Amino acid sequence: MDFSNFGQKFTHDTGVIQLMDDLGQYVGQPGVKMLGGGNPSRIPVIETYFRDQMARLLDSEDRFENLISRYDGPEGHAPFIDALVDFFQRHYGWEITADNIALTNGSQTSFFYLFNMFAGEHQDGSQKKILLPLTPEYIGYEDAGINGDIFVSYKPEIEFLDNRLFKYHVDFNQLQIDEKIGAICVSRPTNPTGNVLDSHEITQLSQLAQEHNIPLIIDNAYGLPFPNIIFSDEQPTWEPHIVLCMSLSKLGLPGARTGIIIAHETIARTLSNMNAVVSLSPGGFGGALAADAIRTDDVLRLSNEIVRPHYQAKVNQTISWLHEELAGLDYFIHKPEGAIFVWIWFRGLPITSQELYDRLKEKQVLVIPGQHFFPGLPADDPEIWPHRYECIRVSYAGEAAVVHEGIKIIAAEARQAYATNTE
Amino acid sequence: MDFSNFGQKFTHDTGVIQLMDDLGQYVGQPGVKMLGGGNPSRIPVIETYFRDQMARLLDSEDRFENLISRYDGPEGHAPFIDALVDFFQRHYGWEITADNIALTNGSQTSFFYLFNMFAGEHQDGSQKKILLPLTPEYIGYEDAGINGDIFVSYKPEIEFLDNRLFKYHVDFNQLQIDEKIGAICVSRPTNPTGNVLDSHEITQLSQLAQEHNIPLIIDNAYGLPFPNIIFSDEQPTWEPHIVLCMSLSKLGLPGARTGIIIAHETIARTLSNMNAVVSLSPGGFGGALAADAIRTDDVLRLSNEIVRPHYQAKVNQTISWLHEELAGLDYFIHKPEGAIFVWIWFRGLPITSQELYDRLKEKQVLVIPGQHFFPGLPADDPEIWPHRYECIRVSYAGEAAVVHEGIKIIAAEARQAYATNTE
Repeated sequence: MDFSNFGQKFTHDTGVIQLMDDLGQYVGQPGVKMLGGGNPSRIPVIETYFRDQMARLLDSEDRFENLISRYDGPEGHAPFIDALVDFFQRHYGWEITADNIALTNGSQTSFFYLFNMFAGEHQDGSQKKILLPLTPEYIGYEDAGINGDIFVSYKPEIEFLDNRLFKYHVDFNQLQIDEKIGAICVSRPTNPTGNVLDSHEITQLSQLAQEHNIPLIIDNAYGLPFPNIIFSDEQPTWEPHIVLCMSLSKLGLPGARTGIIIAHETIARTLSNMNAVVSLSPGGFGGALAADAIRTDDVLRLSNEIVRPHYQAKVNQTISWLHEELAGLDYFIHKPEGAIFVWIWFRGLPITSQELYDRLKEKQVLVIPGQHFFPGLPADDPEIWPHRYECIRVSYAGEAAVVHEGIKIIAAEARQAYATNTE
Repeated sequence: MDFSNFGQKFTHDTGVIQLMDDLGQYVGQPGVKMLGGGNPSRIPVIETYFRDQMARLLDSEDRFENLISRYDGPEGHAPFIDALVDFFQRHYGWEITADNIALTNGSQTSFFYLFNMFAGEHQDGSQKKILLPLTPEYIGYEDAGINGDIFVSYKPEIEFLDNRLFKYHVDFNQLQIDEKIGAICVSRPTNPTGNVLDSHEITQLSQLAQEHNIPLIIDNAYGLPFPNIIFSDEQPTWEPHIVLCMSLSKLGLPGARTGIIIAHETIARTLSNMNAVVSLSPGGFGGALAADAIRTDDVLRLSNEIVRPHYQAKVNQTISWLHEELAGLDYFIHKPEGAIFVWIWFRGLPITSQELYDRLKEKQVLVIPGQHFFPGLPADDPEIWPHRYECIRVSYAGEAAVVHEGIKIIAAEARQAYATNTE
């Protein structure tokens, strides 16, 4: 096949492609311990809530028909946008209108748009980049650049905490922001690590963005105010130079593919135009199912009383299992502050995380090898920074028994790998 | 805002952006005669069918929950893909498997992927183009190139028929296919004209594609076997060098955003990878609502007994109204062979189609000015090829009374424009 350079990009299997392939192939297969994907938990209260919403759509005279039978505008499902505007004004006093919101077919699409909007070739001939101030960072960013690599990123500072926990911090001494940087981006809570940048870090990044007249893009897919899978005390924030990206996926609607972007109106308008050209308009099902939850504040009740406690309990249990099973090994776990993953660091592991992934896959345990989570960081020699090849991302969102069983197998494989080395 | 060149593309309002904006802004507004968008008709039998499908999803123990609560694989909703494979094998004997199908978030997304896969910069440094053998061609293609213009297209041959009808034909004498062409693409039935390339034309294009080892992309959004808005006697066709693009939109599910691509497995796999990077996976609602229709062949019954007759009756009525209202003017109508539009040519109109669009919009009649439907054709002086500026696309899918009223207003405006010139 004679593909363009853009087409060629997609003929080899990259991190996110492997991730989504694993998901499509192994989810629901008997015997498989799926700890690899980003599927949220099946939470009955949430599923019942959205089932009821769909039943209400069907009960109304023509809301269902209106949903299926016509295209939304390119900015997305209007009743949902209106509900969001009212919600953010009401609760946080943000000065936004419908002109500040664009919906997309999921957060992944939001980032495809935003990264290519601010990075890549500019009119003056310069090639701009997206600055990721801290890696590990989300695997799905890696291939987003339509014309190649578009990231500049940095290694983190590592703070060791009690009880084999650690936490990454932005190393502000390293950060260089010049005219080659088109935007700054962080996921918060961070996928894959569950890190939540502290308010000091966010304030500093926000100031840096403002000083350099570039946007700070915050990937808030797990964050505040919904789905609120964040275990520390934080407040949602938005300002005109912040591009806040949200999603309905982790609230319980990944199948609906609904991304939400709150941004300066020029950015929102341009995103809406991108929708028109790339997909006419984004799908309306997510917005139709969630609009009432936003209008009635049910979304806050569900997030704070159901979703967050659910994941908080699961992560506590998961961490305790990990300590139990990994005892005696030189492992560390990133402090779990949010999101639906634990990030395990096997210090000095004699095999790479890719090899560990392969061995676990043979045992029907699916995880994501950590080396994919360093977009923009040159793939240097393992000898130089082994940390990159010593970590795995493990989802704890699945059924407890599956997670527990998976952890046992991960521990056994890691133990064997460490042991082989010392022979 | 310091946008990249890619971002800049979307800061000005192009044809498809205007189209989608009009749709989002004016649909459902009281008094507006919306003849501009691509919304299909509201057909009660169809709406009831899909309402019942959703009710069945809710009635089952966990089909609805499975739909909302997890990501599909990047190729799209697996049960729907399996149903499609079986359907096309069963009815047409096509030698395809699930590896030949990729779903997308709608046909517009399919073309964004396909055009950029085959056009633009190639590894040898060459810039390849998509050949559109005949214009007018679909407005939505125009801006699809991520790095600028990617189309080469040609003026049609015009055949005058009885009763002020005419038909476009591919002018094969003009076509030049060399190593700069990455793929050939036609919409059939053609949006905007309702033209259906005859089997002789399709065979010739297919042979040309094969000879040059490039794909022939057929935009079959209105075609066979579903939704079958095609008023002549044709057969669906697929071969490994053909990329067949279909959609659930005109069957009645535009809000679900579901595109279907049947292609060589290398192409399908690459499209699936594009989904992973651009949107993780496409939305599953369309496939979930339509899978049973495909499995049971209901889709054929609905297409042949409900959808096609519905549009056939409407287009006959529309043409008859047009002849009535436009009598005495120098107008022609493209022979209505399919799709949901009539393409009206006001020969020698003293104002441009854009001016006519603007005047009609003031009278609350929304149409699409014809000049947007010539992607790849240099925007030459109106003096040289006035035809391009003398046509409008009018959707006849709306309520009969609205279409009739709209046609009266179009006729009055055109009559006034012609009259002003002769004063």
